[in-house]
Amino acid sequence: MREEQNVHQDRYRQIEQDFENRYGVRTDLAIEAHEVIVRKEGPPELPGVIVKNEETEHALISRVTVENELGAKMIGKRPGNYSTIEAKVLREHNREIHEDIGALLAKEIEWFLDQSGLNEDDPVLIVGLGNWNATPDALGPQVVGNLMVTRHLLELSPPELRKGLRPVAAIAPGVLGLTGIETGEIVTGVVERIGAKAVICIDALASRSVDRLCSTIQISDTGINPGAGVGNKRIPINEETLGIPVIAIGVPTVVHASTIVSDALDLLSGSNPHDNPRNQDVPQRTSINPDPSMIMGGAQGTQQPQFNSIQKQQMINQVLEPFFGTMIVTPKDIDQLIEDVTQVIAGGLNAAFHEGVDYTEIFQYLS
Amino acid sequence: MREEQNVHQDRYRQIEQDFENRYGVRTDLAIEAHEVIVRKEGPPELPGVIVKNEETEHALISRVTVENELGAKMIGKRPGNYSTIEAKVLREHNREIHEDIGALLAKEIEWFLDQSGLNEDDPVLIVGLGNWNATPDALGPQVVGNLMVTRHLLELSPPELRKGLRPVAAIAPGVLGLTGIETGEIVTGVVERIGAKAVICIDALASRSVDRLCSTIQISDTGINPGAGVGNKRIPINEETLGIPVIAIGVPTVVHASTIVSDALDLLSGSNPHDNPRNQDVPQRTSINPDPSMIMGGAQGTQQPQFNSIQKQQMINQVLEPFFGTMIVTPKDIDQLIEDVTQVIAGGLNAAFHEGVDYTEIFQYLS
Amino acid sequence: MREEQNVHQDRYRQIEQDFENRYGVRTDLAIEAHEVIVRKEGPPELPGVIVKNEETEHALISRVTVENELGAKMIGKRPGNYSTIEAKVLREHNREIHEDIGALLAKEIEWFLDQSGLNEDDPVLIVGLGNWNATPDALGPQVVGNLMVTRHLLELSPPELRKGLRPVAAIAPGVLGLTGIETGEIVTGVVERIGAKAVICIDALASRSVDRLCSTIQISDTGINPGAGVGNKRIPINEETLGIPVIAIGVPTVVHASTIVSDALDLLSGSNPHDNPRNQDVPQRTSINPDPSMIMGGAQGTQQPQFNSIQKQQMINQVLEPFFGTMIVTPKDIDQLIEDVTQVIAGGLNAAFHEGVDYTEIFQYLS
Amino acid sequence: MREEQNVHQDRYRQIEQDFENRYGVRTDLAIEAHEVIVRKEGPPELPGVIVKNEETEHALISRVTVENELGAKMIGKRPGNYSTIEAKVLREHNREIHEDIGALLAKEIEWFLDQSGLNEDDPVLIVGLGNWNATPDALGPQVVGNLMVTRHLLELSPPELRKGLRPVAAIAPGVLGLTGIETGEIVTGVVERIGAKAVICIDALASRSVDRLCSTIQISDTGINPGAGVGNKRIPINEETLGIPVIAIGVPTVVHASTIVSDALDLLSGSNPHDNPRNQDVPQRTSINPDPSMIMGGAQGTQQPQFNSIQKQQMINQVLEPFFGTMIVTPKDIDQLIEDVTQVIAGGLNAAFHEGVDYTEIFQYLS
Repeated sequence: MREEQNVHQDRYRQIEQDFENRYGVRTDLAIEAHEVIVRKEGPPELPGVIVKNEETEHALISRVTVENELGAKMIGKRPGNYSTIEAKVLREHNREIHEDIGALLAKEIEWFLDQSGLNEDDPVLIVGLGNWNATPDALGPQVVGNLMVTRHLLELSPPELRKGLRPVAAIAPGVLGLTGIETGEIVTGVVERIGAKAVICIDALASRSVDRLCSTIQISDTGINPGAGVGNKRIPINEETLGIPVIAIGVPTVVHASTIVSDALDLLSGSNPHDNPRNQDVPQRTSINPDPSMIMGGAQGTQQPQFNSIQKQQMINQVLEPFFGTMIVTPKDIDQLIEDVTQVIAGGLNAAFHEGVDYTEIFQYLS
Repeated sequence: MREEQNVHQDRYRQIEQDFENRYGVRTDLAIEAHEVIVRKEGPPELPGVIVKNEETEHALISRVTVENELGAKMIGKRPGNYSTIEAKVLREHNREIHEDIGALLAKEIEWFLDQSGLNEDDPVLIVGLGNWNATPDALGPQVVGNLMVTRHLLELSPPELRKGLRPVAAIAPGVLGLTGIETGEIVTGVVERIGAKAVICIDALASRSVDRLCSTIQISDTGINPGAGVGNKRIPINEETLGIPVIAIGVPTVVHASTIVSDALDLLSGSNPHDNPRNQDVPQRTSINPDPSMIMGGAQGTQQPQFNSIQKQQMINQVLEPFFGTMIVTPKDIDQLIEDVTQVIAGGLNAAFHEGVDYTEIFQYLS
Repeated sequence: MREEQNVHQDRYRQIEQDFENRYGVRTDLAIEAHEVIVRKEGPPELPGVIVKNEETEHALISRVTVENELGAKMIGKRPGNYSTIEAKVLREHNREIHEDIGALLAKEIEWFLDQSGLNEDDPVLIVGLGNWNATPDALGPQVVGNLMVTRHLLELSPPELRKGLRPVAAIAPGVLGLTGIETGEIVTGVVERIGAKAVICIDALASRSVDRLCSTIQISDTGINPGAGVGNKRIPINEETLGIPVIAIGVPTVVHASTIVSDALDLLSGSNPHDNPRNQDVPQRTSINPDPSMIMGGAQGTQQPQFNSIQKQQMINQVLEPFFGTMIVTPKDIDQLIEDVTQVIAGGLNAAFHEGVDYTEIFQYLS
Repeated sequence: MREEQNVHQDRYRQIEQDFENRYGVRTDLAIEAHEVIVRKEGPPELPGVIVKNEETEHALISRVTVENELGAKMIGKRPGNYSTIEAKVLREHNREIHEDIGALLAKEIEWFLDQSGLNEDDPVLIVGLGNWNATPDALGPQVVGNLMVTRHLLELSPPELRKGLRPVAAIAPGVLGLTGIETGEIVTGVVERIGAKAVICIDALASRSVDRLCSTIQISDTGINPGAGVGNKRIPINEETLGIPVIAIGVPTVVHASTIVSDALDLLSGSNPHDNPRNQDVPQRTSINPDPSMIMGGAQGTQQPQFNSIQKQQMINQVLEPFFGTMIVTPKDIDQLIEDVTQVIAGGLNAAFHEGVDYTEIFQYLS
């Protein structure tokens, strides 16, 4: 069975790699993968992939379901559900809006919990991935510091009082460079020890787009995949490796330096790399004065139909790696933004896990 | 066997409790326990307890061995070895002295490693106990942040290159209130997972004496006992519970508020609570002007032979608990002191674990 | 005139010193000074001192006015107004309650602003006193980090838009040990430079009582006095030295170690040091089992009518100074408490200074 | 005279602006400005500009003197001295090397102090510019937290003991967004108040090159210019505005996102943007496999002689501003790098200001 597991792992790694090779894009966000395809190949209907959108006052929620292996191949993501909350307002330092988004997040988490078939008092382990000493990677550990954990309290309570209160535990396992241990090993060890029935991982992601930094939250049931995120987490943490449902909550906090160069090239050549009907508050191409084709090589640029953007991205990565390899792009006020998103996610989790506890009460609990 | 374990645990808990009842003192430091007895009962020779002292330029090293159960009963500590480095200079912000003390610490740790029969390339797990959000309890997590961990690097190296390099891993498991999980459970889970052959715990302790705060380091092979320390760690972490050697490194960072009251009463009644030949830099009683007996009840004070200090301490604790229960006493500059001690302990551990690496190099590695 | 100023300074320093000598108590809180007198001398009416209390759902507000020099001599505080908000609930991590107390604070600050005769668009400088590297002394700098400052924005706005918006500036000048400059010098320099018409100082205070730590806020118009607080601020910051109104907001965050010994002695001898009708949630003496007189010197203790508590306090201080001099007492969770009080004070200031801005909005602004 | 001052300010702002327009480059580093010219225009001799280089074991020191207005026009920097220490080793976490660089820095600072005609016991104010809440902008405040300040101690010493000890004071004035006060106003206020005879500013800079981040230190006597750096400091702090010598120590900690795009374009088109004989550890163009001209527009790229890199940079800035405006590029481990550079600069300043104090002693003082 372990054998078979590895087969699966390898198959999906291959699917992700194929997507990257085809489109020159590596992304943790299903919605970004979907956008890449739509932008490059046309109509948004993909076999085996269902996309549903919902708009709220402050946010756009996209729910992507990858139904089967065909869908996985199309979108470069393993089969499962991916919900994304996009809310530019998350970047404003406004508590009321944060509470709104936190409530939306709670509802999504509840949906995933329902899907996973978890009983209402099954114990859950929340895992804050990342390095608490590196600001943009500290999201996970900071969320853990703001959770209402209950497992130790419920153990001491008489069973009749525990009804409707789920035992919640939490750890911030650190990163390989600080611990010498794969995060997946620590999580497996703790899950076995405490008999957790589901794991929720919180992680800082790398995005393809500066627009998404600290303004997008992805919830998925496909776990954390190797090599994803800001740090270096090579063993996957997912239902296959742990044997219990794994829900991953990810927020893009950095863009790799070489990624923005590619975006910039697209911008300079006149195509908005994140052009899509939603991003209506992003300045449109028409507002740009200089003729971008001049920058990229004049009129001749249009005479190169065979020269595609995928090859371009690959070359860019290869050329820039030695120079920009360890450089990340973040908003100037990343310290404050991480603090704000921490409140939203911790609030959403507290609300989702402690039914019968009122949202207002829960957000009050947070500092 | 698990049964038998518990018998042991209970027996030694009882021995500690008996000591506390007899002397009105609860202390994590063997040296403090020893001082209490000597002060209250006279000559320093106890059956089953060996004490050896060594003086260096900056420090006094005391090595206490509790040989057997008789010794354990005498001193209220379970059988094993306890080394204590006392160095007031630790409180000075002087890097050279810190390196000296770090080297002394490395030597003690090496002695304990030798005693434990560990092979030179057996993997070791270093555990930084405590809460990284509470300054005086953050020592353990901060040390973890400054260690040279090697396990993940050695796993990738060819065996012939690993000679003399020990695989070292480290975690900061958090505290029960933040994680909902007993620290002991997390440690057990990780030890099993990575096959560690020994555990080193770093912990902030409560001391009986403000003099010892951030100036004393205890190394012992008897593990971390329930209820010890600043936080709340109820499951013991020791050789019996983990099945592998456990070396505990502890530094007093707080004194409980009710403890200093007891000290103060002793001071006011004219006896230095920590009077012993070593503390020569502590102001002596003779320099105190007012007649302390006046404060405590005049000349009549001497007429109460039947009223002993143990009962006094117990009453004090009982009376003050509701008022001072959660109050701690620390030096004003505790933030800086914790940082300094972190460097000393991380430096000592790095030196002890990475033989063939030069001390100077190791301390340079630290910031 | 500078000459005359110094005369004043000296006179009031003397008055404070006299009070300390008489009662063995040094306190920054007018309400504590008042309690000391009432407890030791009987009826609460003092000539030249008016005390008015008001109870709200979560807090007790005491407003003490020292009318004249006679009052100043009685209570050991210079003439002026002292409002104190006592709210044990401040120690609970509950945002709604924090907003309530913040609103009470805003109302008090507004009253002081009215008293000071400030015009509604006179510029104000908020000064966060203390050391941002020492947790219990970091209150002032942390508040500054959460303020809505407007001076720079209003300077760029057309005058007609500035109506009702007060120019607010803020600095955290650091402490003498880190800057080499008296805080008063920095404040004077900045006040002159920006033409501030009033100064609001935020400071961490030392209290006499652990009950008051992080649960009491004092607002006064008598400035910050030399030697007060946790750090070392020797030049007074008040209307006399600056030439403009100075409102001081202080919160006790530490108790000096020698102070709690004195309290403990009182507790042990059977008298609650903070006994007063308000503290009804503090366990009463009758619930204490052991006969406290035993601890203090048996039946003979009652035969010492001539031995008073003031002398006792003085002796205690003298005896303990060399041992406990730099030790402070704080709650275990001081890091979290400071964060919470920061939110309350920053919220109160933002509300008080930006009329027409809604409280809810303002508290939302805070993280 | 104030009038004339403004004339000067304006003239040099114009010179800087002209340079930016001509070369499409805005940089705080004289050495970068010089490189831009040499790269674009050929031979390194510029009229009115003297450049002298010195190599040490770990560093390259460049000393640029802008002799007069002609030189200023050539290099886009106001007349004065600019020393730059370039040391890639600064990015290694190695204390011994940090001490070496700190000693080099001390020597440069001493040279500037000599030039300024300061007497050996003239008081000096060190100003740590920047925002302590934003990691890459916190360099200045962090240096202030590690300085040996002496002004308050010397004031209390008898004059005969003060010989050779310079009164050093320090402040971290914060940033406009947090204080509502221009940093220049606070500095002026404090300088007047304490009678400082020189100011040393520490500031985090924006660089053009990721290679220079946290590996380059510039010391100059031309002050801090408006708009420079990470934050927003509009009033210049220099000899003209303060009336006393101002020495600025700057370290690049971020690159603006749009800057790296320009570099990337140069890299992709085959020219190393920082190509110069020194950067021998940077991978050379020849090691890059793909033909970069393909990425930029194929063979046609070479047919555009009239299309120059300056125009390109300007267009890039214009196109990217709305997308990347507030984005910064930093190394992943910026938190640790800032800590390390803090030690180097604080060590260098302590050594430079406290003659007769041994370097080793001073670096020991630092944590």
